[in-house]
Amino acid sequence: MNERLILVTNDDGYDSKGLAAAVEVARGFGRVVVVAPETTQSGMSQAITMYNPLYLRRVREEEGLEIYAFSGTPVDCVKMAFDYLLRDERVDLVISGINHGSNSAVNVLYSGTMGAAIEGSFYSCPAVGLSLDDHRDDADFDAAVVYGKQIVGDILAAEVELPLCLNVNVPVGRPETIKGIRLCRQNRGFWREEFYRHEDPRGREYFWLTGEFVNGEPGAEDTDEWALANSYVAVVPVQTDLTDYRQLKNLGNVLK
Amino acid sequence: MNERLILVTNDDGYDSKGLAAAVEVARGFGRVVVVAPETTQSGMSQAITMYNPLYLRRVREEEGLEIYAFSGTPVDCVKMAFDYLLRDERVDLVISGINHGSNSAVNVLYSGTMGAAIEGSFYSCPAVGLSLDDHRDDADFDAAVVYGKQIVGDILAAEVELPLCLNVNVPVGRPETIKGIRLCRQNRGFWREEFYRHEDPRGREYFWLTGEFVNGEPGAEDTDEWALANSYVAVVPVQTDLTDYRQLKNLGNVLK
Repeated sequence: MNERLILVTNDDGYDSKGLAAAVEVARGFGRVVVVAPETTQSGMSQAITMYNPLYLRRVREEEGLEIYAFSGTPVDCVKMAFDYLLRDERVDLVISGINHGSNSAVNVLYSGTMGAAIEGSFYSCPAVGLSLDDHRDDADFDAAVVYGKQIVGDILAAEVELPLCLNVNVPVGRPETIKGIRLCRQNRGFWREEFYRHEDPRGREYFWLTGEFVNGEPGAEDTDEWALANSYVAVVPVQTDLTDYRQLKNLGNVLK
Repeated sequence: MNERLILVTNDDGYDSKGLAAAVEVARGFGRVVVVAPETTQSGMSQAITMYNPLYLRRVREEEGLEIYAFSGTPVDCVKMAFDYLLRDERVDLVISGINHGSNSAVNVLYSGTMGAAIEGSFYSCPAVGLSLDDHRDDADFDAAVVYGKQIVGDILAAEVELPLCLNVNVPVGRPETIKGIRLCRQNRGFWREEFYRHEDPRGREYFWLTGEFVNGEPGAEDTDEWALANSYVAVVPVQTDLTDYRQLKNLGNVLK
């Protein structure tokens, strides 16, 4: 039996606490290669680096684990792994995360973690984005590791149809306080920003994004936001055909 | 009658040729405010700037037109416009573009132009992303302007249902060579990268993304890729619920 190969990436950077937690999830299932950003890439969505050269650095290697840092975005890391470093190998799964902060609802669109997971799912293997609903530096990743292992195990054991990309969000709390896994749809909502304004030391005004999430359907029990708020692990399968089929019908009467 | 207010942004930067073409489209329909990136932001997807302060610069103003440059991503520009500069006004439409290069098929996911258009559609007005299938510096935007005006005119004249976000891609060629508008779905496909490798002047190896698009359904006449290749303007309505409803059903048997 060939050993499985798992690619791990994230958007918080190769040396983040959440990446170590993702490696812990992955190592139970096979050999692990990490290709993760040199620097924090939160909010980078599915961005790619078009106008800059990128540098790859081998950070360290031990039995069953190789870690590389790449100077690009999370999606660049996935491309570097599949199209260069591992191009002659078969990758069985991509894990992206574990993110410091949830990527539920519309956050899936802005998330570098999910950008990388989506990109991974383009390479004929399942991809799982793992996020913990806790931004704190001392966030407790135990529950995310427990449920990450369970979900990855189930995916690898089953004959899943491809493409498959999961957006997994784990609530704050110890593993025993979590009620289980819920398959959900993406909650509708949006962000409204308050731009923090201040003057820099040279007297130039600057702005800083500080937003607030507006939940468009707070009572909807089949959504990821509801699951998270009610101590469930929210699992949303994600696809990338953005076509609005409803509007496609409507517009026949609008565009001449 | 109140004059309409149109927000224009892009990902190629406030002083690009394509932006001037988008302003030409917009000015026929009302007062225009441009908030566009200071620098090129191609491939920035729906990225937001979380860890840097952002600077806003008023570039110039003339009758019915104000132009601002913002140091962030295309999505940052849209947020700056709606949540700060224009927060007390009603914006009737967002135009993002006109992009140098098409954003058909899976490119919608990586595109800063479409990231901004999608973000615009979160603010209770229609949003139109315009792209021209020509990367050259001397690209001819005439056809994109002609069809951009037609589509924007139709959208503003109709009582369109919201949210509405259009991904409009215009083929290369003079306006008279184009066969008309086709409503399409997003073509399935993906990119495979060839990393260009070279050594920098200090002897460090670097990589540069150079990809090739793989069309997953080359014969499908209802897709944007087919329309573009056959001299039609491709119009794909775009939505942002990424839930994979098919997999949502399948996974009930996989995740315990």
